[in-house]
Amino acid sequence: MEELRKKYYDKFKDELFESCVPFWLNNGVDETYGGVKNCLDRTGKVYSTDKSVWMQGRTAYTFSHLCNQFGKDERFLSFAKSCIDFEKKHCIDPTDGRMYFTVTKDGKPLRKRRYWFSETFYIIANAEYYMASGDESRLKEAVKYFDFVYGMYKDPSSDPYKITPKTIASTRRLKGLSQPMIMLNVASIMRRADKANEKKYTDAITGLIKDIKTFYKPELKALLECVTAEGEYFSEASEGRVVNPGHDIEASWFLLEEGLYRGDKELIDFARTIFDISIERGWDEEYGGILYFKDVENNPVEAYEHDMKLWWPHNEAIIASLHLYKQTGDVKYKQWFEKITEYAFAHFSDRVYGEWFGYLRRDGKPTEPPCKGHTYKGAFHVMRMLFKVLEIFDAE
Amino acid sequence: MEELRKKYYDKFKDELFESCVPFWLNNGVDETYGGVKNCLDRTGKVYSTDKSVWMQGRTAYTFSHLCNQFGKDERFLSFAKSCIDFEKKHCIDPTDGRMYFTVTKDGKPLRKRRYWFSETFYIIANAEYYMASGDESRLKEAVKYFDFVYGMYKDPSSDPYKITPKTIASTRRLKGLSQPMIMLNVASIMRRADKANEKKYTDAITGLIKDIKTFYKPELKALLECVTAEGEYFSEASEGRVVNPGHDIEASWFLLEEGLYRGDKELIDFARTIFDISIERGWDEEYGGILYFKDVENNPVEAYEHDMKLWWPHNEAIIASLHLYKQTGDVKYKQWFEKITEYAFAHFSDRVYGEWFGYLRRDGKPTEPPCKGHTYKGAFHVMRMLFKVLEIFDAE
Repeated sequence: MEELRKKYYDKFKDELFESCVPFWLNNGVDETYGGVKNCLDRTGKVYSTDKSVWMQGRTAYTFSHLCNQFGKDERFLSFAKSCIDFEKKHCIDPTDGRMYFTVTKDGKPLRKRRYWFSETFYIIANAEYYMASGDESRLKEAVKYFDFVYGMYKDPSSDPYKITPKTIASTRRLKGLSQPMIMLNVASIMRRADKANEKKYTDAITGLIKDIKTFYKPELKALLECVTAEGEYFSEASEGRVVNPGHDIEASWFLLEEGLYRGDKELIDFARTIFDISIERGWDEEYGGILYFKDVENNPVEAYEHDMKLWWPHNEAIIASLHLYKQTGDVKYKQWFEKITEYAFAHFSDRVYGEWFGYLRRDGKPTEPPCKGHTYKGAFHVMRMLFKVLEIFDAE
Repeated sequence: MEELRKKYYDKFKDELFESCVPFWLNNGVDETYGGVKNCLDRTGKVYSTDKSVWMQGRTAYTFSHLCNQFGKDERFLSFAKSCIDFEKKHCIDPTDGRMYFTVTKDGKPLRKRRYWFSETFYIIANAEYYMASGDESRLKEAVKYFDFVYGMYKDPSSDPYKITPKTIASTRRLKGLSQPMIMLNVASIMRRADKANEKKYTDAITGLIKDIKTFYKPELKALLECVTAEGEYFSEASEGRVVNPGHDIEASWFLLEEGLYRGDKELIDFARTIFDISIERGWDEEYGGILYFKDVENNPVEAYEHDMKLWWPHNEAIIASLHLYKQTGDVKYKQWFEKITEYAFAHFSDRVYGEWFGYLRRDGKPTEPPCKGHTYKGAFHVMRMLFKVLEIFDAE
């Protein structure tokens, strides 16, 4: 690790504090309406004033976390607060407490979706901001939304938003990996914030790990995106065969950290297996980089973008490989860490305007015109990767 | 035209009857459950048994049309009938008459969407099949669904399917080009089938052309995908600035044909303008081919696939350019026809297994593994282009 630390520590730290932080502080802060302006082009110019609710929460989480890891910075704290305040004021549907997916720049609701991911990012925003600011009302809000969302996770009929289901359930009922995976991350952040109730979150995580394992099919060497309600492999249609290697690699380091917390060797080994099978499936031997979607039986994938390279799987893989190298000492993880880091910094990192390009074609060139912020990309994955890597190095 | 005819007629005819027709007859006919198996990989193997309702209707339209243009063929007619029968039996929600979007191989409903495009393809399937078979009950079904869908177009509140709207209308109300464009095509096919009521469809088309013109903004040199409910350019968010050049070029030949039907020179000129501005914006000077989406102010486009090359815009552009060359004699349309034809046959047409690849990266290589059929791709755009080109050549 010492050799890696010498070689990479400053590179990651500079990318965080000289490239990403200034990009968002200079371009993303909405001085007029509050919150973050998330749709930014390569140079940082706003190309759409609509606001992603996910990105309000994720930005607040990231900038609060910077204070918790590196020491309080009033600019970071005030940016985080602005995002959370914008969310609390404008992004919650007063009729049922569920949150919107997008709103206008001044907070008028645009879309409300069935999924509760806006809520999960609101929870981690409040939890992390509480740890940075000491403001108890934020912890209270985080707990309230954790209980609400975890309730919907356990019993979908408790969801007050009665929207027409996407798929007709009498014909097919599949369940997705995203839900238990995100809940695992949310619960582990809540456990750090809400220390008095550690056991509550640990118990929830025990169940979530069990749920995640139902998506793992050793005979396919895959952690699937969807399985049947009974946990079976559904091979007839594309949706049952899709693998998102970046997603699985993200799950692997969530699981690894939980394994370390518990001192659970079996869980650590499971996390390692998930990384191994996912990077093997996802890595593009022809052009380098991690492919976005694969079919577990090597059929065509319906999503048009399936062989593009998105920034975030590379972020997850850098975290996971470094973590695994540190825990196992196995040199193959060091090699992955270096290989992925080199690909990612060479292709995604923008040395001219800062931050990372979001979307590359298979050959590694950005789609044009390139963007830095998007409804699905904000001050989150790149910066989380950068601070996690520094945390792993620093924890030695 | 004679020179072009000599050079291309057999090429297009062979592509239709030696490549596309056998591909679908050999791989797409569902002998067990009826209808078309639409998710086919490069070789024609089924990779998902789910059925696209759009593709049931489109396949029936295409194979019926072949009979109407080239003479009755029992295999074509029976394939078309099988698709329509499958739709009538399995793809209509008995509670409200609205149609599903996808069903299982044996016809159990999977998804029902708010949009009525399944219905529009069911209409043209029935209309074209009636003309091929003389079965009056199919004309009756086409008329019934035309009146139903056109009613929903004119007055969305008449839609019996009360699904939660996608966007919260009190905040933003945009309207899309797809609806009047598809209705124009449907009405013109109905006019050929339901000859006794020619005026009804011509009157509808008069209104639809007026509606389509509200999407044309000469100051932007663009036919936009979305405008406000009042017909204004909405520049603040990406969705208001998106242009789909292939879609606009498709509109251009729908409008051109209507202009020819009416002997309306102003409409023909409008169609020509739409083609000119759209091919100029969409053509990729770097790699060749037509880009999928562009932002009218050259901002980033949110859809990941925006700089990919999809098969169907190339199909529409081949039809439109040949049509325009024939009508105007302007050599630039001949040049476009040849340029687009050469790009498309070189990159999309599969000389090994038949039919066309659907999805190319910007550099013109298929995404991998490639597919021939998809929820959004079936026996429609390629084959329609091939028979339209032969029709234009034959009509001399």
